[in-house]
Amino acid sequence: MIKSVLFDAYGTLYDVHSVTKKCNELYHGRGMEISQIWRQKQLDYVWITSLMDKYKDFWSLTKEALYYSLEELGLQYNEKIVEEILNEYLHLSLYPEVMEALNNFRPRELFILSNGNLRMLNELVKNTYLDKHLDGIISVEDYKVYKPKPDAYDLAAKRLGLDKEEILFISSNGWDAAGSKSFGFTVGWLNRFGKPADRLGMTPDFIASDLKELAQITKSI
Amino acid sequence: MIKSVLFDAYGTLYDVHSVTKKCNELYHGRGMEISQIWRQKQLDYVWITSLMDKYKDFWSLTKEALYYSLEELGLQYNEKIVEEILNEYLHLSLYPEVMEALNNFRPRELFILSNGNLRMLNELVKNTYLDKHLDGIISVEDYKVYKPKPDAYDLAAKRLGLDKEEILFISSNGWDAAGSKSFGFTVGWLNRFGKPADRLGMTPDFIASDLKELAQITKSI
Repeated sequence: MIKSVLFDAYGTLYDVHSVTKKCNELYHGRGMEISQIWRQKQLDYVWITSLMDKYKDFWSLTKEALYYSLEELGLQYNEKIVEEILNEYLHLSLYPEVMEALNNFRPRELFILSNGNLRMLNELVKNTYLDKHLDGIISVEDYKVYKPKPDAYDLAAKRLGLDKEEILFISSNGWDAAGSKSFGFTVGWLNRFGKPADRLGMTPDFIASDLKELAQITKSI
Repeated sequence: MIKSVLFDAYGTLYDVHSVTKKCNELYHGRGMEISQIWRQKQLDYVWITSLMDKYKDFWSLTKEALYYSLEELGLQYNEKIVEEILNEYLHLSLYPEVMEALNNFRPRELFILSNGNLRMLNELVKNTYLDKHLDGIISVEDYKVYKPKPDAYDLAAKRLGLDKEEILFISSNGWDAAGSKSFGFTVGWLNRFGKPADRLGMTPDFIASDLKELAQITKSI
């Protein structure tokens, strides 16, 4: 019986590529290129530093990944521009169905579980008026461990005081769906873009193309 | 004083994108797309399964990544085609300067240190006549740990019976240069494509655009 629903933030509730608009303003027409390299590098840096046992917080890694992206594309920048783009992470767009769909997961308690710093997540949630729709935010930050490490999912179970089977975890990121399933959560993979399933030896319990559909098919579990 | 030189294999001595030719034959003109998604997914899968504590060998992960790439691009495949493409990993092209440049690193002993299975590496090295130019191959396979985890570099130091400072490690992969430097090797980053340095908090000791240049600038260390 599911008692709490945990949502990944970046890519799942929030469109990380909504930074494209600001990047296009600053670098005419290069927004999508910047955004795509930036997102891939951000994930790479999280994983590589984790494997190296050299923890660095998510805000800093996101900033380093942004510097790299601008450099790779040969774009001029200064600290003011970098901060301006980086601050878009505090104002990402919610995917259109999210606000309405969240209520369909009630009466369970609803939380975010994210690799982001707590400050980033708090500001983002507040800026997008999602704070009234959630029961809380769980950041991996205090534990200095990142998803998809098992400890990152375990800290959420401990924080909620629940068995892992009592938690439904939802992510659009294939690696996150695999990692959380491997840990032992009940998992919904939000396949927003009709991608093939990642071949990581783990099968999510539920698959849907948007959050409303996912709420529907997990209603009675 | 450097006593042994270790070379990464994939991307450093060997061009992983030489699979493009075979992919182009089988999927007219889609070779580079396949190769690029395949390489990124291969690395992703190595890192994600490592973080999940779900070790799987490199050949299998490379195969899973290939399946994913063909599926993402909507290309039809069967087992015979997948095996045919996968086998290209046993016949990758050496970068043009490698064969000649290796001798310039003498009189030190020369080894490969790679995430690949030992069988893959042995066949590849034999098929490209590099076996006569190397003193051995060290695969992480027996230890079930992947670079850039510190243990993956440590196993090489132990196998060689050397202190880490006595080893020059050379890789074209930014994450590998960072991981090996973080571990404590003397590191040469082969920046083959004029990319910006990865911002992982580690600076390689030497940087060059090809192996001949790298041999030259590390001659007297």
